[in-house]
Amino acid sequence: MNPEMKQLGEERSAIRELFEYGNARKGEIGAENVFDFSLGNPSVPAPACVREEISRLLREVPAERLHGYTSAAGDPAVREAVASYIGTQFGVPMSASLVYMTCGAAASLTVSMKALCRAGDEIVVPAPYFPEYEIFARNAGAVLVPVPTDASFRPDLPAIAAAIGKRTRAVLVNSPNNPTGAVYTEAEMRALGEILREKSRESGEPVYLFADEPYRELCYGAPPVHPMAVYENTLVLYSFSKSLSLAGERIGYIAVSPRCAGAEDVFSAVCGAGRSLGFVCAPALFQRVAAACLGKSADVGEYRANRDLLANALRAAGYRLIEPEGAFYLFVQSPERDASAFCERAKRRELLLVPSDSFGVGGYVRISYCVPRSVIERSLPAFRALIAEYPTPYA
Amino acid sequence: MNPEMKQLGEERSAIRELFEYGNARKGEIGAENVFDFSLGNPSVPAPACVREEISRLLREVPAERLHGYTSAAGDPAVREAVASYIGTQFGVPMSASLVYMTCGAAASLTVSMKALCRAGDEIVVPAPYFPEYEIFARNAGAVLVPVPTDASFRPDLPAIAAAIGKRTRAVLVNSPNNPTGAVYTEAEMRALGEILREKSRESGEPVYLFADEPYRELCYGAPPVHPMAVYENTLVLYSFSKSLSLAGERIGYIAVSPRCAGAEDVFSAVCGAGRSLGFVCAPALFQRVAAACLGKSADVGEYRANRDLLANALRAAGYRLIEPEGAFYLFVQSPERDASAFCERAKRRELLLVPSDSFGVGGYVRISYCVPRSVIERSLPAFRALIAEYPTPYA
Repeated sequence: MNPEMKQLGEERSAIRELFEYGNARKGEIGAENVFDFSLGNPSVPAPACVREEISRLLREVPAERLHGYTSAAGDPAVREAVASYIGTQFGVPMSASLVYMTCGAAASLTVSMKALCRAGDEIVVPAPYFPEYEIFARNAGAVLVPVPTDASFRPDLPAIAAAIGKRTRAVLVNSPNNPTGAVYTEAEMRALGEILREKSRESGEPVYLFADEPYRELCYGAPPVHPMAVYENTLVLYSFSKSLSLAGERIGYIAVSPRCAGAEDVFSAVCGAGRSLGFVCAPALFQRVAAACLGKSADVGEYRANRDLLANALRAAGYRLIEPEGAFYLFVQSPERDASAFCERAKRRELLLVPSDSFGVGGYVRISYCVPRSVIERSLPAFRALIAEYPTPYA
Repeated sequence: MNPEMKQLGEERSAIRELFEYGNARKGEIGAENVFDFSLGNPSVPAPACVREEISRLLREVPAERLHGYTSAAGDPAVREAVASYIGTQFGVPMSASLVYMTCGAAASLTVSMKALCRAGDEIVVPAPYFPEYEIFARNAGAVLVPVPTDASFRPDLPAIAAAIGKRTRAVLVNSPNNPTGAVYTEAEMRALGEILREKSRESGEPVYLFADEPYRELCYGAPPVHPMAVYENTLVLYSFSKSLSLAGERIGYIAVSPRCAGAEDVFSAVCGAGRSLGFVCAPALFQRVAAACLGKSADVGEYRANRDLLANALRAAGYRLIEPEGAFYLFVQSPERDASAFCERAKRRELLLVPSDSFGVGGYVRISYCVPRSVIERSLPAFRALIAEYPTPYA
């Protein structure tokens, strides 16, 4: 068989490994006794419009039309709705003809990378980053070039500029960020756009911006600037997984900026990549559900309240962390240098935290606070006892 | 960008090209005046259990659990149900741990090929075959080796045996067959199994059987033997698209035979390939819907009646065709050597038929009879007038 694929299957991602362990452990000692902060599985229910739209579609649309194949890029009315929403909500020109509905953010990523990368191309990405990016890049024959953020998880723009070379096909940003929760400011994004514009000019070929945005609506401060507003050669990679709590339903889109150089060709390549990877079309029912729920979201206030509760309690207990402005993760500095060792200690207290190593940096843990509030409340004694195990935390 | 992907996106499959043309044409002259036999989009509604199960799930399962991520290989209860069904229905031992839920047949194919193929590996396939196989194989770095069937579309077993060489990773069969409608007999399948067993012994490495089975339930004669019953190193690639009329919802599975050499390693490779291609998990809602509807199907009798109506009428009009025993396609010999030219003439009569060239053979057209009966009835005059254009058809 393909030995790389066998290994990839055996070594489940650290996140998924912990998730499976957590499920098993819950079976052993009771779900209420396990504090599973591993997987970013939305804990807030889908907004009412999801169920209402499913019911309406079941009632009003003949089944063979509702569940049949759509056009490969998506149902035309759905694509129109998405384009219209982007145009209205963000004030950037957008065309339905440049919208490609996908099976979720992962698919948006593998499709975009395969569409635009040739073997050996490089994708610059601020680190820490979502671990699967590496696997998706490899699938496209490309290589990730991580560029560490600064100590406050802000993008290091001069370092990003220096990392962009002859083989750089794209810069991949994820804001609001998994795992840090950082939301790039408009100034940071405009500066990044300027860098990419300059680099594209220098090389004579576009350096694309891949903006991976599944957490756009999970933002606790000013809404993020729309990437298409700051740079032309932009692909927005979106997913409804977090905004509509539909992570398991696999529904998102790729939007190619109309101002992208060769936008139609880029879109053709996106379609070709989707076809090549085995994505015939995005799931039909949820294409329509997503279109009907554009602009709506699950109760983000619950996530914010979780953030406040947990971040405050951890800080009070002596943990070091930067307040996240978006997404539903705390990226907490490990009290000992070896974050994996810290996570093993945490596991013994039924706290399931993900060490930062697979995110491209050492010394941190990711804590997903997309859990019921009661889980956070019940976990606090364990967190306090855990750091108390260290006579000199952060020595 | 990736020029191969751009080209793949621009040159839509012949099938999809015609489908899009048909949609546009319906808009121009009215849907009732276009006879679109291009796309295999199920015309029979999903069975009642689909809507009932969706409604039940919406009522009874909390939304965040219903729509959240499942384990990568699928919800455990769903995998158990699939394994149990395979075991009971077909009398072959099956284990839930070897079931991987997928986003439809295309995903089952790209994942299996990527799991098991290394660059340059060969996949032997009887021709005519579903055109996308070539694209899926290329995605895995593999190469299709087509082996023509005989004049009655039966698999040419000696030729298949001769085509299996050092680089052959798998033989891919599709029965009931797209585009011919042939259903391989138990004797043919057992003989194929014997060939594969012998070839595996000779080379010291398993030659796998990929059994692509989305049309299993669309069978008008004896049900097909289960591939796992005739050969050990078998992966069944299934989809609920046709049996449950859920083509747009993207739900199927890969089942690795427990008797497959290194079955657990094969399964790991399947998981790794799914991860690598961007399939996080199969769509959550429809995983459960499919599990609840195992053994049920849309009204296959409607397809059979369509087959009878159309096949009889075409034969009476002078067309040559082999009666299909399964699926919902007629593979009709073109009255002129150039099947594409024939299809262009057909198009002028609003008959949308797919020329056989992209299926790996020349001189035939594929007619998808998964359409409302009334479409077939209204199309018959056009079919008669079309063959009447030829003074000496099949000369």
